[in-house]
Amino acid sequence: MESGASTAAPPRTLPYWVTFSQLLGLTVVAMTGAWLGLYRGGIAWESALQFNVHPLCMVIGLVFLQGDALLVYRVFRNEAKRTTKVLHGLLHVSAFVIALVGVVAVFDYHRKQGYADLYSLHSWCGILVFVLYFVQWLVGFSFFLFPGVSFSLRSRYRPQHIFFGATIFVFSVGTALLGLKEALLFKLGAKYSTFEPEGILANVLGLLLASFSVAVLYILTRTDWKRPPQAEEQALSMDFKTLTEGDSPSPQ
Amino acid sequence: MESGASTAAPPRTLPYWVTFSQLLGLTVVAMTGAWLGLYRGGIAWESALQFNVHPLCMVIGLVFLQGDALLVYRVFRNEAKRTTKVLHGLLHVSAFVIALVGVVAVFDYHRKQGYADLYSLHSWCGILVFVLYFVQWLVGFSFFLFPGVSFSLRSRYRPQHIFFGATIFVFSVGTALLGLKEALLFKLGAKYSTFEPEGILANVLGLLLASFSVAVLYILTRTDWKRPPQAEEQALSMDFKTLTEGDSPSPQ
Repeated sequence: MESGASTAAPPRTLPYWVTFSQLLGLTVVAMTGAWLGLYRGGIAWESALQFNVHPLCMVIGLVFLQGDALLVYRVFRNEAKRTTKVLHGLLHVSAFVIALVGVVAVFDYHRKQGYADLYSLHSWCGILVFVLYFVQWLVGFSFFLFPGVSFSLRSRYRPQHIFFGATIFVFSVGTALLGLKEALLFKLGAKYSTFEPEGILANVLGLLLASFSVAVLYILTRTDWKRPPQAEEQALSMDFKTLTEGDSPSPQ
Repeated sequence: MESGASTAAPPRTLPYWVTFSQLLGLTVVAMTGAWLGLYRGGIAWESALQFNVHPLCMVIGLVFLQGDALLVYRVFRNEAKRTTKVLHGLLHVSAFVIALVGVVAVFDYHRKQGYADLYSLHSWCGILVFVLYFVQWLVGFSFFLFPGVSFSLRSRYRPQHIFFGATIFVFSVGTALLGLKEALLFKLGAKYSTFEPEGILANVLGLLLASFSVAVLYILTRTDWKRPPQAEEQALSMDFKTLTEGDSPSPQ
């Protein structure tokens, strides 16, 4: 037990939790599409429907893909660490690009309609989380994928990267809930209190969004589901790759 | 290093983080009061102002006190474990009672005004988080304060208690943000987009609420700020109290 809890028994229930999280994530994406299709007229770039690009892209990018990027190290426990690391970075890039389309869509829509920008709590949280996400990606890339950063510096930064990564993810989901609420109140107004079908659908979507984040964070934070320390060390320094691979091929 | 990262150097920056979190928490409570006083006519039980009891009680109970209850084991590192445990439970009881007053206030207000209950995403999240908070307290009490539960059962439940405790706290803050947003949109409507002072104050309050939760979770999750394992064991079983106290009086 010298190396800590991560040497515990192999995670038997992990695959079920991962499957559950993916079902939740896909349901959330599908339900966002259904909400926009059924009650908001669908999606287009060159019309008033341009607004609807925003919620769909944000849910796919900053909720589903960002959440999955966080799970990469838990799901691909037996792949080479470098591959996993690159996949983690690429998933975050995809999430960022899709979210960027969503952000451009809403600013462009506001400009065309003559609406004010950045006045609401949703927009303040949104722009903050988007900038933090970008900064986190840049700093993460510089420390873990860019060559030349020392092993000790990577070791010291790693817990911060994980904490702020998880925080930004939760903040993203919270911002999505605020946006959903805003969209409901702007359109339904007092009708929201009469249990309109759209209101109920959106409330269920909100609870599922929150559930997806809980499932992802549960998988991410369970101590006995972390990669064994040998593999962790490899993650911190690609310079140590051959050394650690030689030591421990099985739990990598 | 056999006992893991928790035997690391004493936490030098912990007091600064705790002070920062308390300043944030108190600012959030004061600002909620200021918002209700300046823009919502203040607080009373027997009038339309009864609604205002709700946000104030929820912020004091389910945000500030719940957050502080989570920090007890990090702040009182040198106190007897049993004292800390009782303080943790009592802070949660206070938080629950104050939140209960807040919940009663809004249902009573709705009844008097003839408004519908539990139709919005805020109310769905709110009632869910309130029930989960109560269940978590009951289960926590049964496992850790009620005598007779075995050491191994406590050890197995402990990580779940911490994860779901932190999750319920984050969910509480998210629900507060949804409620704040709802209150703004109901009253300000389209005026929200003209950067009304109330809107700006409430947006800043929303960001401070989120910041308080991040500060609390940072303190809670930093591995090297956890109580040393000897004290952790003591937390899990009061039956082991004398044994562990004799072993390690200093890092308790």
